[in-house]
Amino acid sequence: MKMEDWLNNETSQIANKLMAYNEQHVDIEKSIGFTGRDKVHQILQRFHEILFPAMYDQATADKVRTHVIINDKLRQAALDLRDIIEKVLIYQNFDNCDGQCGEKAELVVMQLINKFPQIREMIQSDIEAAYNGDPAATSSEEILLSYPSIRAVFIHRIAHELYKLDVTIIPRIMSEYAHQLTGIDIHPGASIGRSFFIDHGTGVVVGETCTIGENVKIYQGVTLGALSFPLDEFGNPIKGIKRHPNIEDNVVIYAGATILGGKTTIGHDTVLGSNIWLTHTVPPYSRVYNSQPSPNISISKEYVADYEI
Amino acid sequence: MKMEDWLNNETSQIANKLMAYNEQHVDIEKSIGFTGRDKVHQILQRFHEILFPAMYDQATADKVRTHVIINDKLRQAALDLRDIIEKVLIYQNFDNCDGQCGEKAELVVMQLINKFPQIREMIQSDIEAAYNGDPAATSSEEILLSYPSIRAVFIHRIAHELYKLDVTIIPRIMSEYAHQLTGIDIHPGASIGRSFFIDHGTGVVVGETCTIGENVKIYQGVTLGALSFPLDEFGNPIKGIKRHPNIEDNVVIYAGATILGGKTTIGHDTVLGSNIWLTHTVPPYSRVYNSQPSPNISISKEYVADYEI
Amino acid sequence: MKMEDWLNNETSQIANKLMAYNEQHVDIEKSIGFTGRDKVHQILQRFHEILFPAMYDQATADKVRTHVIINDKLRQAALDLRDIIEKVLIYQNFDNCDGQCGEKAELVVMQLINKFPQIREMIQSDIEAAYNGDPAATSSEEILLSYPSIRAVFIHRIAHELYKLDVTIIPRIMSEYAHQLTGIDIHPGASIGRSFFIDHGTGVVVGETCTIGENVKIYQGVTLGALSFPLDEFGNPIKGIKRHPNIEDNVVIYAGATILGGKTTIGHDTVLGSNIWLTHTVPPYSRVYNSQPSPNISISKEYVADYEI
Repeated sequence: MKMEDWLNNETSQIANKLMAYNEQHVDIEKSIGFTGRDKVHQILQRFHEILFPAMYDQATADKVRTHVIINDKLRQAALDLRDIIEKVLIYQNFDNCDGQCGEKAELVVMQLINKFPQIREMIQSDIEAAYNGDPAATSSEEILLSYPSIRAVFIHRIAHELYKLDVTIIPRIMSEYAHQLTGIDIHPGASIGRSFFIDHGTGVVVGETCTIGENVKIYQGVTLGALSFPLDEFGNPIKGIKRHPNIEDNVVIYAGATILGGKTTIGHDTVLGSNIWLTHTVPPYSRVYNSQPSPNISISKEYVADYEI
Repeated sequence: MKMEDWLNNETSQIANKLMAYNEQHVDIEKSIGFTGRDKVHQILQRFHEILFPAMYDQATADKVRTHVIINDKLRQAALDLRDIIEKVLIYQNFDNCDGQCGEKAELVVMQLINKFPQIREMIQSDIEAAYNGDPAATSSEEILLSYPSIRAVFIHRIAHELYKLDVTIIPRIMSEYAHQLTGIDIHPGASIGRSFFIDHGTGVVVGETCTIGENVKIYQGVTLGALSFPLDEFGNPIKGIKRHPNIEDNVVIYAGATILGGKTTIGHDTVLGSNIWLTHTVPPYSRVYNSQPSPNISISKEYVADYEI
Repeated sequence: MKMEDWLNNETSQIANKLMAYNEQHVDIEKSIGFTGRDKVHQILQRFHEILFPAMYDQATADKVRTHVIINDKLRQAALDLRDIIEKVLIYQNFDNCDGQCGEKAELVVMQLINKFPQIREMIQSDIEAAYNGDPAATSSEEILLSYPSIRAVFIHRIAHELYKLDVTIIPRIMSEYAHQLTGIDIHPGASIGRSFFIDHGTGVVVGETCTIGENVKIYQGVTLGALSFPLDEFGNPIKGIKRHPNIEDNVVIYAGATILGGKTTIGHDTVLGSNIWLTHTVPPYSRVYNSQPSPNISISKEYVADYEI
């Protein structure tokens, strides 16, 4: 078939098939869609400008003017978030709203934004933890401008509040946005204490039911994950069970360590070494690490082109 | 030297040097360039809108209108893809075209897009696999809006069709776009069955000659890679050899596992544990995992500031 | 409270609190801010167009025209970089400038850009290393358009020059930009020889005081990091100490290996296997790898639904 004929006669049918298939499998009338997702990303950007006014051009010596700008952005972002939360509540939790989804959305937004000063203070503790935790850091400004940890934790601390307020989907859109920007994947359900620092961060995964104490430092590639999870009588995974570990205060976890299981607790002031795999509790003040490759497998020999590893 | 003088007298020569060097090392007349790369990204975005019309604003209750929009996008993207494939064929495979690069490009585009309903159905199986494979997932919509796996596999299933149709460069531009968005790096050559799910995904690498069966689940940081590869008589790597493993149906591979080699087959219904390193075949129904750090290296002791790990 | 009342009466106070907190913790007058960060990203994009003119539409058969475009971009980017470096010097290193921050900024820019032909040549060696190091690579063009390694190393080679010229913050903004685009996190301080190739790359971390020889190849998830670092008398990390390993010529490091410590040297022509954890020196021509999971923990048995790993 010539492409011209195909364009005139065939694509229409393909479009029809795709529309019909989508109608069957996606609830067209009940989704915020990718437009909603983009809106959530934009709201997060506004929140960033509001929480760090001094880092944007908006901040000038003229404080009255700056205040007008910040307050304006705050009100606009609050209304935008209200609208999208209302949609999600209508689509997903209508029964829980008693028809009052708009009112519930407003309540959620006010509760979240009232906590902003407190969230801002938490993030300051994270910035200081980064400065103290990385000899390569030279200033707070450098940390704000170039540390993925701060961006990821900023988003997490907001997403976590929404998660606690029983909003669905939006917190996960937020956490996946952080994941895309930083390679750090923290489920909004995870509870994380003050002064948290993730160095480098790519590949870090923190599961939904994790709890992390204060002053914890983790490195790239660390997984705080689930063991295998129980299935219900129909073979589906049971949702809402404690599946991820507890990390107590002052723990350091080095690159690539994998800690699994809802009954696993890492006692405070413990150091976990790189690339370990751990599914049981360790007491406070522990040091846990793999043995290094033993000397006899570190072979010094002439280079062989066809080595196999 | 003053900067003003340097701007007037020196930059011109630097520009000349860079142009001359590029002329020697890059075939100016024979590249789709970064403009072509951006075009490929844009075509993928159009394809996403076409395959998931219900997730975009375009989908309204007015089905006739929606159909016009989708069909229009489909035809436009088809023509755009035709143009860029023709360029690649002219630049890279002119001899194989017998001067008919335009016709071959049209054929490829029609073959790809005719498969869209089938590809869409495959992706639905992937969405369901995500829902069943992750206790944290609350709805299909959440998966579409916030799971990197779906984005990566959507792009892979399109790139793989083009790879099979012998188009070069464009499938790799697509897979690297997915890699950039998600941290998941699947070579377009890899063959992947239905109901495939990658949880979290950052750092996953799936090599060119991998085959993956149905209902396979892998976690972040998993590598399905090559062993060392043979060199030809001039010391260059020999291209086009089976170098990557086969993963059979119903296999689960946990975070950070590295499976290498073209002769390595992971038998069906096997579970591979975190952080293992495996270069040999394992039979069906296997469970393979590292031993955990032994108790005697999990030392509970007073905290020492100058610990060394 | 009604949202309308809250918007009228409460947000203003929240905005005030956030502004006051920021004033206390961020030096408003002394930051290039996120606007500065975005400017740095844009300058890097211009530099890419200048170093690879043949890969952009700007390159035409009309060489005079192309030269005008390239030279123009070079001059404009030079002036933009001058401005932002001057700001950083004023904010951070005023004392070292003797009030001559503008002059110092100009000197830095000229020194950097004068090296562009040399940097371009280095990157060509990196492109060739990618072609020779990956059997899946089919052309130089494919490497430029779709290999994250080249993008990351391009940015690193520029950031490293600025780092050597004692500019702060800007090199780290550059390296974090590369990290965000590619998942590859190379500190600008790291010194890297010719013909460097990182395959796939997600999760790679190269620390500030690393030195890497020529013709080195590393895979995704490799960490070249620090051991624990010494604290000063106030418990703060001491900055500016050699903390990261030396990698000699012709070394290959496979996926997920973690090499730590400033006294660790990996001798030339060594191969390090996947997922190893190494904190001591190994001699030239070594091969170091983990033992594979022993056969007795690779159990073939009937599938048990409630497996635990």
